[in-house]
Amino acid sequence: MKKVDLLLTNAIVLTMDEAFHQYEPGAVAVEGGKIAAVGQEQELRNQFQAVNEIDCGGKVLMPGLVNAHTHVPMTLLRGLADDLRLDVWLLGYMMPVEREYVSPDFVSLGTKLACAEMIRSGITTFADMYYFEEDIAKATAEVGMRALCAQTVLKFPTPDAQFYEESLAMARDFIQRWKDHELIVPSVAPHAPYTCTAEILRATAALAAEFDVPLHTHLSETALEVENMRREQGMPVIPYVKKQGLFEAKVLAAHCVHIDEGEMRTMLHAGAGVAHNPSSNMKLASGAAPVRKMLEVGLNVGIGTDGPASNNDLDMFEEIRLATFLAKVSTSDPTTLPARTALAMGTRLGAQAMHIGDKTGSLEPGKQADLILVDLSPVYNAPRFRRDPNGVYAQLVYASKSHDVSDVMVNGRWLMRNRVLLTVDEAALLKASEEYSHKIDLFLMRRETSVLSKLIAIGGAMEEESFEVQVKVKIKDREKALQKLEEAGLQILYKKHYRQYDNYFLFDDPEMGILRYREDDLIDDKENVSMVRTRLTLLGPTVEDQFPSKVLLSRSRYLAPAAQSLRFYREYFKPVRELEINKDRLRYQVRFEGIEFYINLDDVTLPKVGHFLEIKSRTWSRQDAEKKSRLASRLVEILGESVEQTTTDDYFQMTNN
Amino acid sequence: MKKVDLLLTNAIVLTMDEAFHQYEPGAVAVEGGKIAAVGQEQELRNQFQAVNEIDCGGKVLMPGLVNAHTHVPMTLLRGLADDLRLDVWLLGYMMPVEREYVSPDFVSLGTKLACAEMIRSGITTFADMYYFEEDIAKATAEVGMRALCAQTVLKFPTPDAQFYEESLAMARDFIQRWKDHELIVPSVAPHAPYTCTAEILRATAALAAEFDVPLHTHLSETALEVENMRREQGMPVIPYVKKQGLFEAKVLAAHCVHIDEGEMRTMLHAGAGVAHNPSSNMKLASGAAPVRKMLEVGLNVGIGTDGPASNNDLDMFEEIRLATFLAKVSTSDPTTLPARTALAMGTRLGAQAMHIGDKTGSLEPGKQADLILVDLSPVYNAPRFRRDPNGVYAQLVYASKSHDVSDVMVNGRWLMRNRVLLTVDEAALLKASEEYSHKIDLFLMRRETSVLSKLIAIGGAMEEESFEVQVKVKIKDREKALQKLEEAGLQILYKKHYRQYDNYFLFDDPEMGILRYREDDLIDDKENVSMVRTRLTLLGPTVEDQFPSKVLLSRSRYLAPAAQSLRFYREYFKPVRELEINKDRLRYQVRFEGIEFYINLDDVTLPKVGHFLEIKSRTWSRQDAEKKSRLASRLVEILGESVEQTTTDDYFQMTNN
Repeated sequence: MKKVDLLLTNAIVLTMDEAFHQYEPGAVAVEGGKIAAVGQEQELRNQFQAVNEIDCGGKVLMPGLVNAHTHVPMTLLRGLADDLRLDVWLLGYMMPVEREYVSPDFVSLGTKLACAEMIRSGITTFADMYYFEEDIAKATAEVGMRALCAQTVLKFPTPDAQFYEESLAMARDFIQRWKDHELIVPSVAPHAPYTCTAEILRATAALAAEFDVPLHTHLSETALEVENMRREQGMPVIPYVKKQGLFEAKVLAAHCVHIDEGEMRTMLHAGAGVAHNPSSNMKLASGAAPVRKMLEVGLNVGIGTDGPASNNDLDMFEEIRLATFLAKVSTSDPTTLPARTALAMGTRLGAQAMHIGDKTGSLEPGKQADLILVDLSPVYNAPRFRRDPNGVYAQLVYASKSHDVSDVMVNGRWLMRNRVLLTVDEAALLKASEEYSHKIDLFLMRRETSVLSKLIAIGGAMEEESFEVQVKVKIKDREKALQKLEEAGLQILYKKHYRQYDNYFLFDDPEMGILRYREDDLIDDKENVSMVRTRLTLLGPTVEDQFPSKVLLSRSRYLAPAAQSLRFYREYFKPVRELEINKDRLRYQVRFEGIEFYINLDDVTLPKVGHFLEIKSRTWSRQDAEKKSRLASRLVEILGESVEQTTTDDYFQMTNN
Repeated sequence: MKKVDLLLTNAIVLTMDEAFHQYEPGAVAVEGGKIAAVGQEQELRNQFQAVNEIDCGGKVLMPGLVNAHTHVPMTLLRGLADDLRLDVWLLGYMMPVEREYVSPDFVSLGTKLACAEMIRSGITTFADMYYFEEDIAKATAEVGMRALCAQTVLKFPTPDAQFYEESLAMARDFIQRWKDHELIVPSVAPHAPYTCTAEILRATAALAAEFDVPLHTHLSETALEVENMRREQGMPVIPYVKKQGLFEAKVLAAHCVHIDEGEMRTMLHAGAGVAHNPSSNMKLASGAAPVRKMLEVGLNVGIGTDGPASNNDLDMFEEIRLATFLAKVSTSDPTTLPARTALAMGTRLGAQAMHIGDKTGSLEPGKQADLILVDLSPVYNAPRFRRDPNGVYAQLVYASKSHDVSDVMVNGRWLMRNRVLLTVDEAALLKASEEYSHKIDLFLMRRETSVLSKLIAIGGAMEEESFEVQVKVKIKDREKALQKLEEAGLQILYKKHYRQYDNYFLFDDPEMGILRYREDDLIDDKENVSMVRTRLTLLGPTVEDQFPSKVLLSRSRYLAPAAQSLRFYREYFKPVRELEINKDRLRYQVRFEGIEFYINLDDVTLPKVGHFLEIKSRTWSRQDAEKKSRLASRLVEILGESVEQTTTDDYFQMTNN
């Protein structure tokens, strides 16, 4: 007789292996954190002598659930704002609060709260993507759960990095330090094609490939994303990311709502896994992913809860059930995605999609002991029909609830016994979370009276915040600069002539920023107005950085088409003071040393403060900003002006004094 | 100070009234089973002196949930068969098992089990539709829940009635006896337009109108239903039932998945309520009901779980959440059906749809005390943001679970305190339910070797079972009958000439019935075969009834196009014996005394048993069958034969001896 640490007996054992073996009464032998054997109870009794034996009381014994896509620290933002459009939710609530509050302490607390919730609902493994990911990994390892932890990299400033180079470096350090951990698989997460540059996609794929770790990302979540990609790149999302070399890494792709069969085959060929997120896709109205087709093609499709701020919970029982319901209704076929397949997605296929199918996802000898007990005795599980071996999967998927999970083991260690959490102090976490929610409530309530929130409240398409490198010089007149511009032989991409009528709304609290209402009249060759456009821009109160020669790095926080009249906005925002600036602007887009710059030659007509030369360029990275700052200074010189004469004042500041 | 029975204090009170008043800390005063007052705790303390006071410990105190459409006894059939097409599920599993097992004892047990589950998940009121409805009402009243109980009437035989006249009479008796009950609203349920005749719709509407009770029905559940209605009646479902006078009653219509804005306005004008069933509509792939539009039009739209055999639970928390998710994804708009509206559908609007909005659905003085406490302390409810008063609805809809309901009161009586059921012996019910499931398992396992299940297992469109009145006479030759037929001056609707090649499969157990494989060759005027059709028919083992002159009432249980070859079926079904019958058939459809009859003049060619006259007509009601039986006998006489010569044997029986 072989000795083992533990023998679990008297259970309905669902292995969830490829052949869907079941044993009743069944048993599982555990030795050294791994599964030593699975089978009929009597057979295992004959084979093994166990140090400990646990009678499972007729409960279901199955592999722990695998949550294939989430953002765990967002438990702390759950319920902050719901039933909103994605842009308003993200730009108006999530991002401002994240900028303000997300820290190593925040993610650590949020992770532990999430772990408590996930253990309670039978999840043993999850795939995460957030900021300060190493702190998430630490908290997860402390609790004892298994996770793929992916450090986010994107082109916008994040709570943990102002530029993507910083987060990429964090990812590298994190992967190096954790790559051999028994519970954590470190990973990198280029957030999504539309939030990353091609360079970020290439760099993160190279990093993941270098260390042979998975790469976690969002692909083809919304129809808009695909539409934009087609317009901008002439191809849908999957071919685009393939072109950037993304599939040189082992990819775990969340969502994949809007992909066609050809794209599925590309992913299959690349060995990529998919995380399907039905709650999130329904709640945010993204659509129904083609799950049946993906499975037919042969992709490993797991199921994820997505972040708790957009779900609003981490309940895989709900998610698995919803996966079947959504697949059935979206294919108009009730036989689509039967319960057994859905439960396989929530276990083995999810682990395979995460590229850790060798470690977890089913009860098979040699895999780690990640398992749960589910109690089928509650009234909504009665009665039990035994005729059809698939009946038990239907019972678990269509009737059981997360609360029916009584015991959870990860890596051979009990994390919950009889519904008591063994590695998390839930009460302390709940108390700490209330402190955060109180602070965030106050922050948002103060903001309720702010310009930004009012801007968001009136809706409209908000554009993402953008960084600009910017230099401005007062000049004698525009003729000389124009002449120099022609002589310089710069490649001129276009030239436009505007008259701009700006109204600046100023507020008591400078933290609120300044709101600009601009009417842009486009002037044609015959000096006629050929187009009128009005826009609102909220200018942040702070200049982010200053390079040599007073080159500014400034941030325009929000930009929206102004659908209402100036009068409406005046009454709505109630500024304490208002300033008017009119100017005539000649606007050039030029290419200089391979980089695109805007050159504005302004004649400020109200008030008469003179002529100005302005040079601007968008940027997403610190290194890039430094380079563009040097080039902008050289352009000033080329156009015959001195960088010594540059000013950092806005036009309204010149008149405000 | 006024005296009251009970004051509930220290709660987050959500009234769910039209203005969505909230009080925190709030209180509710209960007197004589009714709500006496709702408001801020301190205000109520100043106004009332309570015999009992209960501190709610900061939980949510809100109206009980209203399950606006279900079939409660089907708890006993939950998990019997899943992931099947509707026809296979219904004809292959539900109906055969219901025919065998549904009895007053069955519905009583199933109802109590359902009540236990519903109370545990915060439901205080439900709208039911099933068989033996008076027994369901009794069980419900015993438990102490509020319900609309509707006795089903349809054109097929049911477990409680062979003909619709019987179930209609049961409905009338039931309504008369229960119409003044304090908890039960008795009602009648014409099952659906496609399972009822126009006469049934008219009769049930008249009955409901006579007693001023609601009428409960299924309308426009599937696209197929609407398509068939358009083809057969030239109009969609709502105009059709309006034409039959259905809206003269107060209608509660379940599903309404496929209705347009005009139909919604018809329903609004008629004061009809709607029960939306998202789980069922998704699981059975019926589609997404246009909930946003229905609410915009002004309809009272409640939410129902539908029967637990097609859901598979009675969890309104899940159902309400799903209603918002499905509405958002089907309108591609995440702002559709915000949490507050969804929760109103699950309470006040549901009660209004059931036409009992004056009694329940919100916490308002004068309404009955139907209320629940919900605990927001579990980890998936953390943290709580207080900035937005709608946050608490989002928390309840998107994160809370049915298990968070700790206390339930109906009509001023506690049915659950601290998660302990006070009026149901859950353990005894569970034990009794296991006995049923064991019996049903055995029944179905025996059937697994049966012809019917094998017929179903190979799929194909099964047609509903049909009743026929049938009389057969051996005749000398067909010439004389043909001559009489012409002389009789009957209106001949059509005449066809077939050659029919039948193979009868016989089995060991006569309970299995007999399977007929028939090839029908249609013969044209030039004696050529113009069309060939093959069909399988499973003939029931029993003749249902016999009228004077050996007129039979026989039932053809299943009918399916035979897509495979005779060889395939022979190998697949493995009959113990096989008989062959060939005949030449002249088939007339005639109208006699306003009724349509089929007249077959058969020359049986293999084996040579002679010529026969057969007269048949379909029927759905006993009264109708009796009338047709008399007319068929008269037709025999008119065609020159004697009713004394009639035989009840089938052709294969003539040769079997």
